[in-house]
Amino acid sequence: MSTGPSGRKPNLAVVGATGAVGTVMLGILSERADVWGEIRLVASARSAGRKLIVRGEETEVVALEEEAFDGIDVAMFDVPDEVSARWAPIAAAKGVVVVDNSGAFRMDADVPLVVPEVNPHAVRVRPRGIIANPNCTTLSMIVAIGALHAEFGLSELIVSSYQAVSGAGKEGVDTLRSQLAAVAGTELGTAPGDVRRAVGDTGPFPAPMALNVVPFAGSLREDGWTSEELKVRNESRKILGLPELPVTATCVRVPVITTHSLTVHARFEKEVTVGRAHDILRSAPGVVLCDNPAEGEFPTPADAVGTDPTWVGRVRRSMDDARALELFVCGDNLRKGAALNTAQIAEVVAAELTSS
Amino acid sequence: MSTGPSGRKPNLAVVGATGAVGTVMLGILSERADVWGEIRLVASARSAGRKLIVRGEETEVVALEEEAFDGIDVAMFDVPDEVSARWAPIAAAKGVVVVDNSGAFRMDADVPLVVPEVNPHAVRVRPRGIIANPNCTTLSMIVAIGALHAEFGLSELIVSSYQAVSGAGKEGVDTLRSQLAAVAGTELGTAPGDVRRAVGDTGPFPAPMALNVVPFAGSLREDGWTSEELKVRNESRKILGLPELPVTATCVRVPVITTHSLTVHARFEKEVTVGRAHDILRSAPGVVLCDNPAEGEFPTPADAVGTDPTWVGRVRRSMDDARALELFVCGDNLRKGAALNTAQIAEVVAAELTSS
Repeated sequence: MSTGPSGRKPNLAVVGATGAVGTVMLGILSERADVWGEIRLVASARSAGRKLIVRGEETEVVALEEEAFDGIDVAMFDVPDEVSARWAPIAAAKGVVVVDNSGAFRMDADVPLVVPEVNPHAVRVRPRGIIANPNCTTLSMIVAIGALHAEFGLSELIVSSYQAVSGAGKEGVDTLRSQLAAVAGTELGTAPGDVRRAVGDTGPFPAPMALNVVPFAGSLREDGWTSEELKVRNESRKILGLPELPVTATCVRVPVITTHSLTVHARFEKEVTVGRAHDILRSAPGVVLCDNPAEGEFPTPADAVGTDPTWVGRVRRSMDDARALELFVCGDNLRKGAALNTAQIAEVVAAELTSS
Repeated sequence: MSTGPSGRKPNLAVVGATGAVGTVMLGILSERADVWGEIRLVASARSAGRKLIVRGEETEVVALEEEAFDGIDVAMFDVPDEVSARWAPIAAAKGVVVVDNSGAFRMDADVPLVVPEVNPHAVRVRPRGIIANPNCTTLSMIVAIGALHAEFGLSELIVSSYQAVSGAGKEGVDTLRSQLAAVAGTELGTAPGDVRRAVGDTGPFPAPMALNVVPFAGSLREDGWTSEELKVRNESRKILGLPELPVTATCVRVPVITTHSLTVHARFEKEVTVGRAHDILRSAPGVVLCDNPAEGEFPTPADAVGTDPTWVGRVRRSMDDARALELFVCGDNLRKGAALNTAQIAEVVAAELTSS
């Protein structure tokens, strides 16, 4: 193993180690090639002192304060936007390279937004010392889209999402689970409002999730669009380096625990064929092609959950446009959609630090 | 009340009266203005002799045989394709006007495909004596699309569906209900295949429906498209009278009991505004506009189920194309999607018969 900036492996801080994404992150850090020296677990003062397992070792959580970054080379942040907005610059000022999974910096022109399979080179240009990790919905499709773009030249994206409740955190998961317990064994779902009355509290969602789909995720922005829909648009453009790309998203929450799915209508500059698209997707890093519907093979979130790749199936060429492809895509929103991509970015930085 | 062909109200046969759609039909016939003389209930020999309530009266089911159509003016068929294919021509040969809800005749050039809010005039040209009722997925959106088309001139449709399990009949509903019982109260949905192992039998679906979405409905056709996706394309073109309209559908089943939802990207010949689209949808027969997300108002299947209209919300103008609108649409697949539209077509025929 090559050595770090001062003859050692770089030291890593995981900020938000006790949260939903942080928990997945500790598992991922234990599974992947061990490029890190110290791994320091950081969380709110409330969680300080808790002991968590990473790389098989019990590690005590320390409180988020300036000293938590002493001796650290790279810090991953999996915390709310306002916590990142405050603390990422503090860590960066101490020379730490921050990989941030919040929405605080993603559209900052001086912060690269990185998906290592698509734009790994962007990691190197980080004037603020901060690298942003995309939103989970964007990440659930962009690896597959990026591979097709590299070959055919993307000219338009129209997507609809089928988003899991864990995108709204542990509270989202708990809400769906308790609503499912309320509707299981009943005849509900056949009269207007019967599910709404039975489930009571809708938790972090604006409508019941059990036996329902909810065409609203995030917060309301201009002209009727949601924050989630604008993230898919703006982040896809930034990651692909296509600032004028037409991108239209409609984001819908579905009663799935984890793994986002999307239908994708992708239009390209060149003509496409299903055969060539299959070849590209089959050989693309981070993508699994699962497309033989005659044998019942297509991705579903129940099969993709807990895995790393972007699963792609139902590949069809538009019957009206030889330049357009239809896809169905699934990606685990907590793994590639959050923790895994953050870990991958941090590893690119680690390789840079150890080779410099 | 005006009188029928021979000085009486026309007589109606309901073929398939004991099935899922037939059951909804009996309720609808009891609720709507009573334009019918006799209502005769017809089903397989196995169900003959059963007594069902329609218009508050107990009525005995008779077996499907040629004599079942004696004295009948209009017959609604809610039976499998092969039963319609055999029996609709027999009824028509006896002078009965058949309104058929199967897929057997929808694309027959000599059979009109009718949505009374969109193309009621098509009822009158029925050389085979048969009128077809569209597929439930097409019907869940086409009333709203038709209203917008009348104003703006439709030039392209790209839709993704969120289809309820009752589209696969009672077996579909029973399958989801038993799967929900298997996953409620568990921590399933977080590891690959854990839901698949827990639910066991997938019933009429090619993958688990609980805690999942399944990007496959119907049967596999050419070039990777499903029968359901081709129905949305071909039926939309026929109903709207736009045989060359580009239509792309991706059909996905979701864990909802009843009511199909769709995201719609609709491109028009004229420029659109959200305000004008709102006006059109607000005044369109059979449509309810539900579009004030700032107040949590958008349609969901749990709220639309059991109601007659097509619910429309999340109306946005494309940020890249002043001629395109995005919509989220919900429609009860057993009511407007099947029984209600059939009843409405039959009423148009009844009015024609009584005025002729």
